[in-house]
Amino acid sequence: PESKLPALGTTIFTQMSALAQAHQAINLSQGFPDFDGPRFLQERLAYHVAQGANQYAPMTGVAPLREAIADKTAALYGYRPDADTEVTVTAGATEALYAAITALVRPGDEVVCFDPSYDSYAPAIQLAGGVLKRQALQPPHFRVDWAHFATLLSDKTRLVILNTPHNPSATVWQQADFAALWQAIAARNIFVLSDEVYEHICFAPEGHASVLSHPQLRERAIAVSSFGKTYHMTGWKVGYCIAPAALSAEVRKVHQYLTFSVNTPAQLALADMLREQPEHYRELPAFYRARRDRFVQALAASRFEILPCEGTYFLLADYSAISDLDDVSFCRWLTTEIGVAAIPLSVFFADPFPHKLIRLCFAKQEATLDAAAARLVSL
Amino acid sequence: PESKLPALGTTIFTQMSALAQAHQAINLSQGFPDFDGPRFLQERLAYHVAQGANQYAPMTGVAPLREAIADKTAALYGYRPDADTEVTVTAGATEALYAAITALVRPGDEVVCFDPSYDSYAPAIQLAGGVLKRQALQPPHFRVDWAHFATLLSDKTRLVILNTPHNPSATVWQQADFAALWQAIAARNIFVLSDEVYEHICFAPEGHASVLSHPQLRERAIAVSSFGKTYHMTGWKVGYCIAPAALSAEVRKVHQYLTFSVNTPAQLALADMLREQPEHYRELPAFYRARRDRFVQALAASRFEILPCEGTYFLLADYSAISDLDDVSFCRWLTTEIGVAAIPLSVFFADPFPHKLIRLCFAKQEATLDAAAARLVSL
Ligand SMILES: CSCCC(=O)C(=O)O
Ligand SMILES: CSCCC(=O)C(=O)O
Repeated sequence: PESKLPALGTTIFTQMSALAQAHQAINLSQGFPDFDGPRFLQERLAYHVAQGANQYAPMTGVAPLREAIADKTAALYGYRPDADTEVTVTAGATEALYAAITALVRPGDEVVCFDPSYDSYAPAIQLAGGVLKRQALQPPHFRVDWAHFATLLSDKTRLVILNTPHNPSATVWQQADFAALWQAIAARNIFVLSDEVYEHICFAPEGHASVLSHPQLRERAIAVSSFGKTYHMTGWKVGYCIAPAALSAEVRKVHQYLTFSVNTPAQLALADMLREQPEHYRELPAFYRARRDRFVQALAASRFEILPCEGTYFLLADYSAISDLDDVSFCRWLTTEIGVAAIPLSVFFADPFPHKLIRLCFAKQEATLDAAAARLVSL
Repeated sequence: PESKLPALGTTIFTQMSALAQAHQAINLSQGFPDFDGPRFLQERLAYHVAQGANQYAPMTGVAPLREAIADKTAALYGYRPDADTEVTVTAGATEALYAAITALVRPGDEVVCFDPSYDSYAPAIQLAGGVLKRQALQPPHFRVDWAHFATLLSDKTRLVILNTPHNPSATVWQQADFAALWQAIAARNIFVLSDEVYEHICFAPEGHASVLSHPQLRERAIAVSSFGKTYHMTGWKVGYCIAPAALSAEVRKVHQYLTFSVNTPAQLALADMLREQPEHYRELPAFYRARRDRFVQALAASRFEILPCEGTYFLLADYSAISDLDDVSFCRWLTTEIGVAAIPLSVFFADPFPHKLIRLCFAKQEATLDAAAARLVSL
């Protein structure tokens, strides 16, 4: 059939993971850990399955998980969403993003996002008939140019999408960024979609700034997060979104027919984990900071220039001193010839991106990071 | 915000289950069993979780599950789809239906479906900008009027959606229906979405007729199924679709950004189940036939008139002899006053449906069915 998404192929993550596997390369491309999640969480899953919690969850998510999410949000961001009307459990953050975009964006609406941007935003907007306006952020700090941002807004602007901590740039928003965003959109009828799936992997001294901490913005915001990154279980596919009741009602209308509900025993296990081991996510920044620092230190002997990393489990590396190849070609070469798979940064941009940057995932065992660093140092 | 789906509320299934719970009624409304799934399947889940199979599955599904689905399809329907390019694992059948509709239906396209129809089709079509043309089927046999069907087709028709075994009418399509469908659409550029989630709960002597058994139709068809009904685990949310490679490619483009992938350990456990206990789904018709017959027999003493049930775990009952209430009011009364929750049939129709029919789910323990029947016989 004629395609509604003719320009789309398989995601870069699938491509690079496949290439890595074919060439037995160390896979630092697609973002997932090569170590396992908490044993407690796994045991709780087995427990709830054995207890017979295997039928449809409520469409909005099981109550204990929605309550635990509301409590965690209150503890961290100073705002307690209503668990019944403002918290919705989804099939990973991906479904939450898709449902939010589909619920809000009407044909002809404009959506502003910041490049580099995660690859799932654009197709969802396209399928909704929306028009994307992009601001390309520049290395090494990838800061938003708020004067330029203002020029992207119009009466047609419906939604702004942001992501902090930011995949792939590893930068984070500060309270000042949210203040600037609010100032720019306060007088307009614009919603905010805040992708915060790396909320617990933030190394900034101030910690993660959530849209939910901003009293005005959160009245218009859908905050999205998930458990895959936090608990080292990217394959469980449980995410959620938090939004004011009226907004949540619209997201739920879409979620209800997209997936209806999410794996019941996994939800119950995650509720137990949040309640009984809150120290896990509190200790996560230190856990990942140690890996980041070890990897950065090992790469100090290389000819890569490593960019600052304030959050996420990704690191950007500039290979200008090593190769003239474009970043896609360089990543293929790195995978097939050197045995380290990485993601080219240009794939996160709509326009040509004339930098020589690759993204490396450091959610890996120390031995994996050391082995990868040894290969990269040889270049 | 102004709603893109203004007419939509919470699904009838959520409403009735909530009402049942509030009034401690026996819940024969939302379709799910009150008994548990196979212990073997549960143990395989715990096994794969403990083995560390907790990271992203491939976007299309784990290979062992796609292979097992292809093998089962070959064994049952005489056609082996290619596991790599023609089988896609989704977050339940609901996601497969949504992704298929979104991939195929463009603004202005027409989609034909048969009422009574499952409630998720229409919102997905509406969000895609499609226009629904419905043929209302009539009790007690709910057969398609093929002459009338032909009048619903036009140059704008893009898709026909069918469901067999059929929720809620409990009727099934025969090979002759598929032949008639093919005759009607052969000369046109029309695709077919065949919702077959009750494929293993079919009591017809000929067994379940799948669109995949029809050599011409399957070249244009997306067949959807899931494991929730088959394995008594509606809360696991693993489904799939089978379609020719070019069609699958379009569905995958949407699936990739809707949920990206599905719970990994659940997929692996289901692959084990399919391979190692094929007798489970082969014995399922007898398992459910016994429940159906027990329930029907118990209701013979009631003033309900029970309609024929050839498939699914639902039964239609005519309450004309008992009440003049419309079906929605009757179901509320039945739940709150008599203590048995059921689904009113009119909610599956776009146009007024002047019959007095309710849907009863018999995927329940014998004691549950007996207790419900006792209350229904008292009317
Ligand atoms: C869903 S696969 C992509 C995983 C990811 O978030 C990333 O690598 O950026
Ligand atoms: C997804 S809740 C509805 C379950 C079901 O298929 C039904 O009751 O018809």
